[in-house]
Amino acid sequence: MSADTEKTSSEAVKGLKGIIAADSSICLVNGTEGKLLYRGYNIDDLAENATFEEVSFLLLNGELPNESQLADYQNELKKHRSIPAELIDTLKNLPESAPPMALLRSLTSLAGVYDPDAEEESYEKRLEISIKLISQIPTMVAAIHRIRKGLEPVEPDSSLCHAGNFMYMLNGEKPSEDATRAMDLILTLHAEHGLNASTFTSRVIIATLPDIYSAITGAIGALKGKLHGGANTEVLKTLFEIGSIENITPYIKNVRENKGKFMGFGHAVYQVEDPRAKHLKELSRRLGEETGEPKWYEMSIEMEKQVYAEIKRNCNVDFYSASLQHYMGIPGDLFTCIFASSRIAGWCAHILEQLDGNKIIRPKANYIGYEERSYVPVSQR
Amino acid sequence: MSADTEKTSSEAVKGLKGIIAADSSICLVNGTEGKLLYRGYNIDDLAENATFEEVSFLLLNGELPNESQLADYQNELKKHRSIPAELIDTLKNLPESAPPMALLRSLTSLAGVYDPDAEEESYEKRLEISIKLISQIPTMVAAIHRIRKGLEPVEPDSSLCHAGNFMYMLNGEKPSEDATRAMDLILTLHAEHGLNASTFTSRVIIATLPDIYSAITGAIGALKGKLHGGANTEVLKTLFEIGSIENITPYIKNVRENKGKFMGFGHAVYQVEDPRAKHLKELSRRLGEETGEPKWYEMSIEMEKQVYAEIKRNCNVDFYSASLQHYMGIPGDLFTCIFASSRIAGWCAHILEQLDGNKIIRPKANYIGYEERSYVPVSQR
Repeated sequence: MSADTEKTSSEAVKGLKGIIAADSSICLVNGTEGKLLYRGYNIDDLAENATFEEVSFLLLNGELPNESQLADYQNELKKHRSIPAELIDTLKNLPESAPPMALLRSLTSLAGVYDPDAEEESYEKRLEISIKLISQIPTMVAAIHRIRKGLEPVEPDSSLCHAGNFMYMLNGEKPSEDATRAMDLILTLHAEHGLNASTFTSRVIIATLPDIYSAITGAIGALKGKLHGGANTEVLKTLFEIGSIENITPYIKNVRENKGKFMGFGHAVYQVEDPRAKHLKELSRRLGEETGEPKWYEMSIEMEKQVYAEIKRNCNVDFYSASLQHYMGIPGDLFTCIFASSRIAGWCAHILEQLDGNKIIRPKANYIGYEERSYVPVSQR
Repeated sequence: MSADTEKTSSEAVKGLKGIIAADSSICLVNGTEGKLLYRGYNIDDLAENATFEEVSFLLLNGELPNESQLADYQNELKKHRSIPAELIDTLKNLPESAPPMALLRSLTSLAGVYDPDAEEESYEKRLEISIKLISQIPTMVAAIHRIRKGLEPVEPDSSLCHAGNFMYMLNGEKPSEDATRAMDLILTLHAEHGLNASTFTSRVIIATLPDIYSAITGAIGALKGKLHGGANTEVLKTLFEIGSIENITPYIKNVRENKGKFMGFGHAVYQVEDPRAKHLKELSRRLGEETGEPKWYEMSIEMEKQVYAEIKRNCNVDFYSASLQHYMGIPGDLFTCIFASSRIAGWCAHILEQLDGNKIIRPKANYIGYEERSYVPVSQR
C-alpha cells in the first residue's frame, strides 16, 4: 500500500511520513523557508560565530554556555578524549577491508562494554556519557582512519580545540587555521536535524531503557545506510568520475538522458536552498587554493551552476562538503564517520530528551497475511 | 503532551501508540482474543507440533518447509554454527562484569565486520546472512555464558538439532530430551511478536539500506532495555526473593500495600491470557522433578493462583519461562540473550519484508522549543 494513497485508520503510513512521533525542543527544520534552528538559534548565526563545543553544549543543555560553563565543558571533553587501549588493539586485529562505519559501530558497542558507568541511570551520569561519546567518537574515527592506512593512531593533544584535535588525530600534523575552521564548521552544520532515521533509531532504542551505548550503536547502524549518511561520499565519487570541468556538460546530459540522479542536489525536507550549503563553499575555495588543487572546487562551482540551469535544484549540505573534506585529507569512504562524529551531539540530545518522560515506542502493523490456517505435519507437505 | 489526551494533527503521538507503521504478513497478534499467528499458523499448533527449525523457516519464507526444504535448511543452519575464532578471542579479553546483552551486541557487530558478505544486497545473500545469524547468535550466547564462568566454549555438535545443540553449547553435556524440548519451545514461543520495539528498531535501521548486522545490532540494543527483554529475569529474581511457598501470601500483601507490580503478570497487548504462557508450564513441572528442585515450579503455581485471586490478571509468557530456564541451568541475567536467540528469527523476517518495497522511516517532531532568538557572544552571556 503506497503512502500516496488516501489513508484510512487501518492503513499503514509507510515510512511514518507526516506522523508526529515526539515533542521536541531541540531543533526546528523549516523546509519551506529553508530555515534551521538549534534550540532557537539560527544555523547561520551558529555557523558564523560559534564553535562545535558551544553548539554541542547548546544541543545537550538547551542554552549556550557562559564563559565558565564553556571552560568546564571544554575541559571535560578534553579529559575524555583517549579511548581504552584495548579498543585500539581490537581495531588492529580487525579486517582492514571492513567499511569504516561497521568498525565505528563495533568500537562504540565495545566502548560501552569497557565503560563501568554504562548502566548508570542518573541524569548526571547520562550527560557525562553523552559528553564522553561526543569526545571519543572522533578519536575512534581517527584511529580507524590511521590503522587501515598502516599508521599508528595519534594521541589526542589537549592544547587543541575539539575540531583542531580531530584534524590532528586524523592527519598526524597540526592543522592550518582554515582546516580547523573547516572541521569545526562541518561538525556544527551536521550536528542535528530533527527526527531523521538515525536520531529516530536512537530514541526508539533508548525508550526501552537499555544504556546510551546501545542507542548510539544502533544510530550508527542507521546512519551507515546509503539512503542516510552516504550522500557526500557519492558526490566525491561523481567529481572523481567526471574528472575535469570540460566533462561536466556531457556528464549532465548523460544523467538526464538516463533519467539519473544528481548527488548532492535537492533535499527531502528543504524545498528551497539547504541553509547549511552556503557555509562550506568559501572554505572549499580557500582550502582548494592552500592545497594547490583548486580543480575540485572549481568543478563544484561549475556543476552547481549547470545542474541548477538544467533542473532548477539547489545543492545541499553534502555538495561542497565533498570537495572540502577531500581538501582536508579525508577519504570519501570516511565521510559518514565524520558525519557520525558530528551527529553524535544531536543523538545524545535526543536521547536525554526521550528519557525525560519516556514512553516505549511501539507502533502497530497492518496485518495483510494469511487468515488462520491448519498445521500440516512435514510428511504431508 | 500525554498520549491519552485527544490528538489533533499537530500533536505528537507519544510512543506511536496505535499508529500503523507498516503492512506485514508475518504475524497477527490479537490481544482481545489472546491469539497469536505466525504466517497464519496458530502458536498453539506450532508449540505442540513444530520445531524451531520449522518455525524460523516459516517466518523467513512465509511457508512451512516440506521434507527436503527442511533437510536443506537444517544443514545450512548446522554449516553456519561455528563463529570466527577471533570473536572468541575478543570475548575472552572483555570485562567479565559486562552485561551479557552488551557483549552480544558487540559480538554481533563484530561478526558483521568479519563477514565478507555483510554488504551484499541480493535477496539470496540477505537470506543467507539471516540464516547465519539465526544459527550463530546461540553460539555467541553460549560462548558468553561459558567464558564468564571461566570455562572454554563448547564446539557445536552437528548430530544435534538447533535447540539441543544450543543446550549442549551452554552446559557442555548432551541435554535430556525434556531440556531440548524446553529450549525448542522457548525459541518457538519468543520468535516473533509484531512491531515490538526491537523489531521496529531493526526495520527503522534497515530502511536506510545499511547491512543486516547493523539492524540486528540495533535490535539487540533495544531488546536489552528493561521495558522490553528483561521481564523474565525479574520474575526469577522475585521467586528467589520470596524463597518459599509460605512467603508468597505476605509477599503479595506487601506488593499490594506498596502499590507495586507483579512481574510476569498482565501484558501490554493481551487483554486475556497470553497464548504462549500455558505451553511452558508442564515442562517447568517436569524439569523441576528431573532436577530434584520442584520448589520453583510449585511456588510459581501457587503464585499464579494467588495473584489471579488478588488482581484478576493472568500470567504471561515470561512467568513460567523463569523457573523453566532456571531448571535448564540458565542464569537469570542470560535470559534476555536467550530471548535474542529466538527473536532473531522474527527480526530477520521483518528485515527481509522491509527491504521488499523499502521506504526510509522518518517521522516528524512537534517542535515545542524556543522561537528564533539572537546569538550572543560568549563574553556577554
